[in-house]
Amino acid sequence: MTSAASEQTVGEVSEGAILRRILDRLGPSAALVGPGDDAAVLSAPDGRVVATTDTLVHGPDFRLAWSTPFDLGWKAAAVNLSDIAAMGARPTALLVALAMPDDTRLSVVDGVAEGLRAACATLAPGCAVEGGDLTVSDTLTIAVTALGSLDGRAPVLRSGARAGDVVAVAGELGAAGRGLALLFGRFRDAAGTPLPVDDATLSPAEAADLAAQLRPRPPIALGVVAADAGATALMDVSDGLVLDATRMAAASGVTIAFAGGLDEAALSGGEDHALLATFPAGAALPEGFRAIGAVVARGPHAVTIDGRPHGGRDGWDPYRDWDAGRG
Amino acid sequence: MTSAASEQTVGEVSEGAILRRILDRLGPSAALVGPGDDAAVLSAPDGRVVATTDTLVHGPDFRLAWSTPFDLGWKAAAVNLSDIAAMGARPTALLVALAMPDDTRLSVVDGVAEGLRAACATLAPGCAVEGGDLTVSDTLTIAVTALGSLDGRAPVLRSGARAGDVVAVAGELGAAGRGLALLFGRFRDAAGTPLPVDDATLSPAEAADLAAQLRPRPPIALGVVAADAGATALMDVSDGLVLDATRMAAASGVTIAFAGGLDEAALSGGEDHALLATFPAGAALPEGFRAIGAVVARGPHAVTIDGRPHGGRDGWDPYRDWDAGRG
Repeated sequence: MTSAASEQTVGEVSEGAILRRILDRLGPSAALVGPGDDAAVLSAPDGRVVATTDTLVHGPDFRLAWSTPFDLGWKAAAVNLSDIAAMGARPTALLVALAMPDDTRLSVVDGVAEGLRAACATLAPGCAVEGGDLTVSDTLTIAVTALGSLDGRAPVLRSGARAGDVVAVAGELGAAGRGLALLFGRFRDAAGTPLPVDDATLSPAEAADLAAQLRPRPPIALGVVAADAGATALMDVSDGLVLDATRMAAASGVTIAFAGGLDEAALSGGEDHALLATFPAGAALPEGFRAIGAVVARGPHAVTIDGRPHGGRDGWDPYRDWDAGRG
Repeated sequence: MTSAASEQTVGEVSEGAILRRILDRLGPSAALVGPGDDAAVLSAPDGRVVATTDTLVHGPDFRLAWSTPFDLGWKAAAVNLSDIAAMGARPTALLVALAMPDDTRLSVVDGVAEGLRAACATLAPGCAVEGGDLTVSDTLTIAVTALGSLDGRAPVLRSGARAGDVVAVAGELGAAGRGLALLFGRFRDAAGTPLPVDDATLSPAEAADLAAQLRPRPPIALGVVAADAGATALMDVSDGLVLDATRMAAASGVTIAFAGGLDEAALSGGEDHALLATFPAGAALPEGFRAIGAVVARGPHAVTIDGRPHGGRDGWDPYRDWDAGRG
């Protein structure tokens, strides 16, 4: 493909031509029946399949001034892979529904496909995009469905935490939220319009926070590790630690008591895609997990931090929190 | 829920409240782990899962003046169920990613959920919505993933048609396309803005065409029937009979020779969601299928009608054909 071709828009070529560009960039299929028929056929070796869906929408979920197309494909894959890992499962396949304005350049399509492939190859080797759908829309939207295999394990649910369990986490807390705050705080003009990020102005810590926001690296392989280590409950921390722990506490009928030492970014930052797990007391935590609290009998608060309820904002709710900006 | 509550918008309530309204309307889960955790866990009894995704986008795929929310949910389910049937499989579960402007009324959410449930119950009993995602978007978008089981059968692909096979179809051809033409021709104002349909002005045939467009009833159960009857190739006719038959002919390396007697609406209407199948010569066609041609050795044209290539427009391409209207 020439660079001139990549500057064409999706409205200038056929659906078939767009599809071929994508398939050229996705790499080999691992499916029994891969892309190209009415549906894919995938192996589900233990007679069960784990399935989840999560969507990135232009505006509330990303801005084109801040995210490259590669970033969008990467993140759309990563957040879905994380939900498979959070069941104690191994991701096996993605399906991707891509809705694009007809003035979208083909280079955007290329980048999204390359980001999807790279995230799978890096975070969940063996998993690939095995199907999808293309449609035109006023709003660039990437809806991904991820499938996974439990390989004979029991799924690890949110509802299994028991009083006495250790609360542990794998992955970063707070970095993605700090990265978002950095974008909103430093890379918008006076009218609030997103501006391109000037990497030269970033400290190493800021660059790391920005990478966590734009190209998250959830600890996908640690979902299966947690299940094998006897985790009693497991979930993806996507909307902020306190909000997600509140959901686990409610599902399990317990209180989750965090120790002190977690700062506000870690407690309520959002988009961490860390794994929150509970393990039986005395169990050796698997490598990659660190203890951050304990499960106790249900008290007046679903979640406490150093013995007190959380006083801050709990997490991200798109209907409450999106400011309607796009850019 | 009171009717006053249903007039609230999604922007006025929490994501959790919207989710509860949807779950209340979806009916019982048939999954090993249903909605409410990071992912669903579904049975895949023969160690394989069939998976497909298809999206309805406000503008190119539907207009709110013409489709009720119930219609949208129904159609989003039906078109995905059809892709599962087209592999010779039985639909087992849907995942639904719903992206909505924050001024969307809760009654719209209710209707979409009720339409999803009704389509599953009517077209594919035992299949239910088992997971999903809610997000805010400037463009109402319903991205559905359908999963299915082959129950030990081989999948029936597009690539299996062989010279000498009978070409057959199940389901209606042309009605959905005529219904769309009726909407564009009679239910828009002088500026092209969609107007509500006045059912009283419709003939019975027009009402049937409109129903085929807005609430399609693909012959889902006949996918498995075709597989059991020895179908050599099978696909969903969604973009027009000639265009889809061209795809089957290309995948199989043959020419598909339709007999005469198919009118232009049947040949290129689009959105039929009929099943196009090929069966070995001399096989008894299963009930619901009718012969409409024969597979012959690959000739100069992938598809012929009464011996001649198709002269008309072949089918629907969203990037070429959407006029950017919404309403």
